[in-house]
Amino acid sequence: MRPTPRSDASAIPDFFTETRSATESLTADLPIEDMVAQSMEDASPAKWHLAHTTWFFEEFILRPYAPHYRSPDDRFAYLFNSYYVQAGPRFARAQRGMIGRPTVAEVMAYRAGVDAALEDLIRAGDAPLDLVELGCHHEMQHQELLLTDLLHLLSLNPLEPAYKAPGPAALADPAPLTWIDCAGGLVEVGHDGAGFAFDCETPRHRTYVAPYRLASRAVTNREWIAFIEAGGYRTPELWLSDGWGAAEREGWEAPLYWRREDEGWVAFGLRGTQPVDPDAPVAHISFYEADAFARWAGKRLPTEAEWELAAREPIDGNFVETGRLRPKPAAGDGLAQMWGDVWEWTQSPYAPYPGYRPPAGAIGEYNGKFMINQMTLRGGSCASDAAHIRATYRNFFYPGDRWQFSGLRLAISL
Amino acid sequence: MRPTPRSDASAIPDFFTETRSATESLTADLPIEDMVAQSMEDASPAKWHLAHTTWFFEEFILRPYAPHYRSPDDRFAYLFNSYYVQAGPRFARAQRGMIGRPTVAEVMAYRAGVDAALEDLIRAGDAPLDLVELGCHHEMQHQELLLTDLLHLLSLNPLEPAYKAPGPAALADPAPLTWIDCAGGLVEVGHDGAGFAFDCETPRHRTYVAPYRLASRAVTNREWIAFIEAGGYRTPELWLSDGWGAAEREGWEAPLYWRREDEGWVAFGLRGTQPVDPDAPVAHISFYEADAFARWAGKRLPTEAEWELAAREPIDGNFVETGRLRPKPAAGDGLAQMWGDVWEWTQSPYAPYPGYRPPAGAIGEYNGKFMINQMTLRGGSCASDAAHIRATYRNFFYPGDRWQFSGLRLAISL
Amino acid sequence: MRPTPRSDASAIPDFFTETRSATESLTADLPIEDMVAQSMEDASPAKWHLAHTTWFFEEFILRPYAPHYRSPDDRFAYLFNSYYVQAGPRFARAQRGMIGRPTVAEVMAYRAGVDAALEDLIRAGDAPLDLVELGCHHEMQHQELLLTDLLHLLSLNPLEPAYKAPGPAALADPAPLTWIDCAGGLVEVGHDGAGFAFDCETPRHRTYVAPYRLASRAVTNREWIAFIEAGGYRTPELWLSDGWGAAEREGWEAPLYWRREDEGWVAFGLRGTQPVDPDAPVAHISFYEADAFARWAGKRLPTEAEWELAAREPIDGNFVETGRLRPKPAAGDGLAQMWGDVWEWTQSPYAPYPGYRPPAGAIGEYNGKFMINQMTLRGGSCASDAAHIRATYRNFFYPGDRWQFSGLRLAISL
Amino acid sequence: MRPTPRSDASAIPDFFTETRSATESLTADLPIEDMVAQSMEDASPAKWHLAHTTWFFEEFILRPYAPHYRSPDDRFAYLFNSYYVQAGPRFARAQRGMIGRPTVAEVMAYRAGVDAALEDLIRAGDAPLDLVELGCHHEMQHQELLLTDLLHLLSLNPLEPAYKAPGPAALADPAPLTWIDCAGGLVEVGHDGAGFAFDCETPRHRTYVAPYRLASRAVTNREWIAFIEAGGYRTPELWLSDGWGAAEREGWEAPLYWRREDEGWVAFGLRGTQPVDPDAPVAHISFYEADAFARWAGKRLPTEAEWELAAREPIDGNFVETGRLRPKPAAGDGLAQMWGDVWEWTQSPYAPYPGYRPPAGAIGEYNGKFMINQMTLRGGSCASDAAHIRATYRNFFYPGDRWQFSGLRLAISL
Repeated sequence: MRPTPRSDASAIPDFFTETRSATESLTADLPIEDMVAQSMEDASPAKWHLAHTTWFFEEFILRPYAPHYRSPDDRFAYLFNSYYVQAGPRFARAQRGMIGRPTVAEVMAYRAGVDAALEDLIRAGDAPLDLVELGCHHEMQHQELLLTDLLHLLSLNPLEPAYKAPGPAALADPAPLTWIDCAGGLVEVGHDGAGFAFDCETPRHRTYVAPYRLASRAVTNREWIAFIEAGGYRTPELWLSDGWGAAEREGWEAPLYWRREDEGWVAFGLRGTQPVDPDAPVAHISFYEADAFARWAGKRLPTEAEWELAAREPIDGNFVETGRLRPKPAAGDGLAQMWGDVWEWTQSPYAPYPGYRPPAGAIGEYNGKFMINQMTLRGGSCASDAAHIRATYRNFFYPGDRWQFSGLRLAISL
Repeated sequence: MRPTPRSDASAIPDFFTETRSATESLTADLPIEDMVAQSMEDASPAKWHLAHTTWFFEEFILRPYAPHYRSPDDRFAYLFNSYYVQAGPRFARAQRGMIGRPTVAEVMAYRAGVDAALEDLIRAGDAPLDLVELGCHHEMQHQELLLTDLLHLLSLNPLEPAYKAPGPAALADPAPLTWIDCAGGLVEVGHDGAGFAFDCETPRHRTYVAPYRLASRAVTNREWIAFIEAGGYRTPELWLSDGWGAAEREGWEAPLYWRREDEGWVAFGLRGTQPVDPDAPVAHISFYEADAFARWAGKRLPTEAEWELAAREPIDGNFVETGRLRPKPAAGDGLAQMWGDVWEWTQSPYAPYPGYRPPAGAIGEYNGKFMINQMTLRGGSCASDAAHIRATYRNFFYPGDRWQFSGLRLAISL
Repeated sequence: MRPTPRSDASAIPDFFTETRSATESLTADLPIEDMVAQSMEDASPAKWHLAHTTWFFEEFILRPYAPHYRSPDDRFAYLFNSYYVQAGPRFARAQRGMIGRPTVAEVMAYRAGVDAALEDLIRAGDAPLDLVELGCHHEMQHQELLLTDLLHLLSLNPLEPAYKAPGPAALADPAPLTWIDCAGGLVEVGHDGAGFAFDCETPRHRTYVAPYRLASRAVTNREWIAFIEAGGYRTPELWLSDGWGAAEREGWEAPLYWRREDEGWVAFGLRGTQPVDPDAPVAHISFYEADAFARWAGKRLPTEAEWELAAREPIDGNFVETGRLRPKPAAGDGLAQMWGDVWEWTQSPYAPYPGYRPPAGAIGEYNGKFMINQMTLRGGSCASDAAHIRATYRNFFYPGDRWQFSGLRLAISL
Repeated sequence: MRPTPRSDASAIPDFFTETRSATESLTADLPIEDMVAQSMEDASPAKWHLAHTTWFFEEFILRPYAPHYRSPDDRFAYLFNSYYVQAGPRFARAQRGMIGRPTVAEVMAYRAGVDAALEDLIRAGDAPLDLVELGCHHEMQHQELLLTDLLHLLSLNPLEPAYKAPGPAALADPAPLTWIDCAGGLVEVGHDGAGFAFDCETPRHRTYVAPYRLASRAVTNREWIAFIEAGGYRTPELWLSDGWGAAEREGWEAPLYWRREDEGWVAFGLRGTQPVDPDAPVAHISFYEADAFARWAGKRLPTEAEWELAAREPIDGNFVETGRLRPKPAAGDGLAQMWGDVWEWTQSPYAPYPGYRPPAGAIGEYNGKFMINQMTLRGGSCASDAAHIRATYRNFFYPGDRWQFSGLRLAISL
């Protein structure tokens, strides 16, 4: 008898097949040359993402549950373990771009072998479906990282090559900014047990939220340009001390990938270099920049509890506890658009929820050991799979990180 | 008409005189050679502390309120401004050990001149007493930093010189560890307006605290040695990822200043190198170490709200809202000993309280711009002036910092 | 009328074709994944070498001499200029591994296009044959670098992949060490004008050389192991101060690529990991190590004048002024074996010969601007094309560099 | 029976007393605050120089020759050994500014104790006078370093404090530039055995020098300003590759300590900030800058052999083999002024002379182990004791070093 996921178990096999296939479609048109380099220590090569997500299934499912499984190369466990101390030694993170072998073809064969073994295991009823589901969500995280890491790599190339695939959906149309009032109170936040969630979203717990007001949409490029033109990047009074240090050290004058040309701002993106769309949400900003912008605007960033409450409480009172986030609303219907364009920095440090306990074993390293020095982001981006995001989802990055599709939404205390 | 402090205004003049004099007594027996070097970027020379605290009064009180005041050297504003962007340019922090001039004698003359001018201003009734009080608390912070920075400097000298003055009071006697149950609930924390507090302690605000249990005293050296001997410094599973990185990079094997000798552990301190006292609270540990210890012990660090509640609610129900922390209790009376030996790391990132607003102008930079990447500590240390600490006090340092008198207290969720 | 080379002009067209083809044969069996990464700032990807050598012909010959030539992409000049300031801006050296595009296929097309245009130009009699010859020797330098850079990259891969091609000729057989006496005197060294030479080999000039004795062969691995076992890497007295600093900082305990296993020393090389052959010349050592070895042995490194004299004066008095170096002698014939196994560190800093003048224009940057901080090596290695080395050839690297096929030969003052 | 120096033995005792006293007079008026800081890793505090020169006599003379001598603190050997591996472990060079103790007063007492013991030893006829003489020359080197290190430290202070003592003699008056023709030939250079010399000046040996022409004086500030105004610091073609890298990395736009003000160039020096004297020799330039200037001027730097020949061969044929360098000549007498204003960079790397052998034991580390990566300077500066310099003297620094009184003289090949 195997553990089952909190989601519908019967859907897991297809979920697995679709997730694995979706990853491969991301690199289908990519030349090998763009799949091996590591553009910075925080990023990884596309080839590594393809292999690491595979190792995850091999390490946590096939090794313990499929006694007859044989890895094509036992050294892959060393090469493609990202950070799980309890799963054995790891190849140095900063050297991931140095290993030409296994080749892309060998990695694809590794994927196929693991997929076949796992599908056999599922068919035999021997697969721990909760771990299969976790592995799929893990892989969806890496799908997004694969794209953001690739974008960072391509951005270093003076040829400014566009990512060849059709690219993620266009960013949001302009939406009139409205303010959503939220009463707050002594509420519960966090995941409640139905459907998949990462451990860090639990336990659901009480917290007190004072009344607040939340913007109905993210800050746009037009608004960001106003910040630039008002001298936002040259006014230390607007910045946190560490933020100003980072801005000076790294010479920030605009979001990552932006460049000022005679005709105005252009930005490098997955479709190559394009004029900055003033109505799209600003992306590729750090927490420090988001925080400085909010101070300049006389507002603040929301806490993650504020964000989560707003994401699940439609105006009409239908409390959508654990469902998917609300899609883009029709103009003027008063709903906030909470997801699918940019990850939104909150003012909440990524910390354990009261009563949080990581799972036993190496899987417990998934989230828990990163709960320091990072800030929480909410909402999902254009590069996030819609099946992967939900109101309680907690993404997290260091406050100086800029290479994600990260933006912000403003809040006000009432 | 001048602003007045929230504390008793009539006490401020003596408070000023005593505070200024206390600082000078700290360096009275120190050779000049130990007052000029900067042992690391985070620390400052004793001479700099003597001058900077003086500049604070000059910049924020004498310049705006004493029109006839003339600085002995206008360039001191450049040399001794620590980080106040709005108060003008600053000498590079990392170069503070490079400026032999002004000499110690010149700095003492600077102090005397500012003191005389300020005392004149107070006598004339023209001094903004709230800022005088703030300047005194600012100076008390630097008294502690002067000692911790000096200790760090002396620790680099193979001659292991002891700080010549009598040294701070001996650390705590052993106390039997008991656990204090706290009901929590929807409570208010933060400063309430009576008596002095820094801006970051405000506003008082509601928060929800689940029931918890707090240790009656800090972790001792004896307990810490058990952690070392159990392999705590060699077990990455116990550590946050960034913490393990710091421990490996810096080669941590014990608290800062500890050294293992044939007869056992010795530690360098203000009285020179001494055997580690097993019954004293452990000090000179980082947040990362505190967190790893708590995980090893199967407990956790308290939040700052938990700490604050416990510090003001005696068991007998006398609610001591804003008073000084409780002194060392008699053995067995069930009270927790909350202050005066080591600063205690909490699990709370140093973040703005809901509704926090820094004061206008450069004074607003005092605390607000540091509310990122740091963790809150509570309680005060053997190097803290007793007049300077209170239940709502929020100290903050980076999670890897070790040169303060920093320790920990354990907590349990109920 | 075009400039002609000092060598036989009629041989240049074939020389060009053969040289270009030889480069491509080096990477013929290499997976693309091994052609894009840059393993350290000093090394370059194989793809870059293929493109840069092509750019050299495009920039210095096609642009000025072939008015109808069009580059496939004008930005290649930016991407593939190595360091010629006067030839325009350059892509940052440390980022050469970050540019997936142009792909390997595009680079090969670039090569084919330049080759065709250059062959047209030669056929039309419009090619400056001296520059064509220079470009071929430039490319032969890069053939060797391509192999040494690739070896360094492969060495970082835990899979220890062997270079797939047949690999360079096996290293030398053991030879009995004899000592060759040289009278020295007021002699002339440097290139004399017949045949190809780089500018740094000129002008031929007088120098005084005291009588000396030179080893008939390079130091072997057997001898090097004796140095290791005698504690050579742990004895600072044997080392130059900067050398000892490098050895400590980088943890040197043996030549680069060596690893001690239970059965003895193994070394990673172009044929993968193999046992160290005790009779082969030691390779992959820095100048610092060579110098320490010589001091340990009670000998010294030769100067480059001493080396050059010995390379051109056979014992029997036939003075072979500018010809190729002597091949491996028959055992016991008393000749020194001067070339073709390892580059030999000399004790001579790489400095301009008296009266040296670099050519005008960007070509003048080829050698002249590197005449500081580097040491001269003589002799050619197993990875050097035999057509590329000669008695006057001056190779140069920094004294801490180890990734070349670099070894040493001992000398004694008489 | 003790070893005697090559100089007049009867003069050594007074030489010792005068040298020791001269060092102390350099710091007589210096506040303690300026004697403890270390401004960069290459420099040392004045207090350290006072102690280290004392340790040299203690370590190499008193320990082996004065059996009853007792050091005031055995740990001084650890603190004040600069780099002599064979003399035991050393305190980390970069931490010399971190040791407040021993205080300046304690160091002066250490000096007095060593002086007394050494004078006793001399009186008893037991002192190795060659080592005493060496120790005096060693101390004279440190007298100059004490001043250049102090100047560097003072230059970091925004108060721009002047060194309080009378300061070194004013730099040279303008002299009409003439060119001295030298025939060269097969000559001998290096020290010949009479009078004191460091080991690196030996052995005297043959070398061939082609005919050359040497400038009669060093390059002046007026000439250097012309180089700046001609764009010399913005023209990479003029620079060695490593030199341009250093210039860009460190932002060089003029000699160290120069600053452009509205009225023209000013420079910080031992007398504080002063206008640049156009007729004084340029100082505080690196080898890289000297080399770029020479290239810009269409000339070159001399070799050290060229410099030495010119320094000892007056035009009139009086061959002054080993005497002191020629003093400032009367205007128009055709003699070159070779010493006493700035050290002059030569184009010669600091390398062992043919046949060079360092002395046995730790004293052998004095010069030999630094013979790599540095360039030779000749001539002595305004901060050099006249008794310390001679025609064969070889000073050496890294090509990027700028904090010495270093300038240049031009040469031409004939």
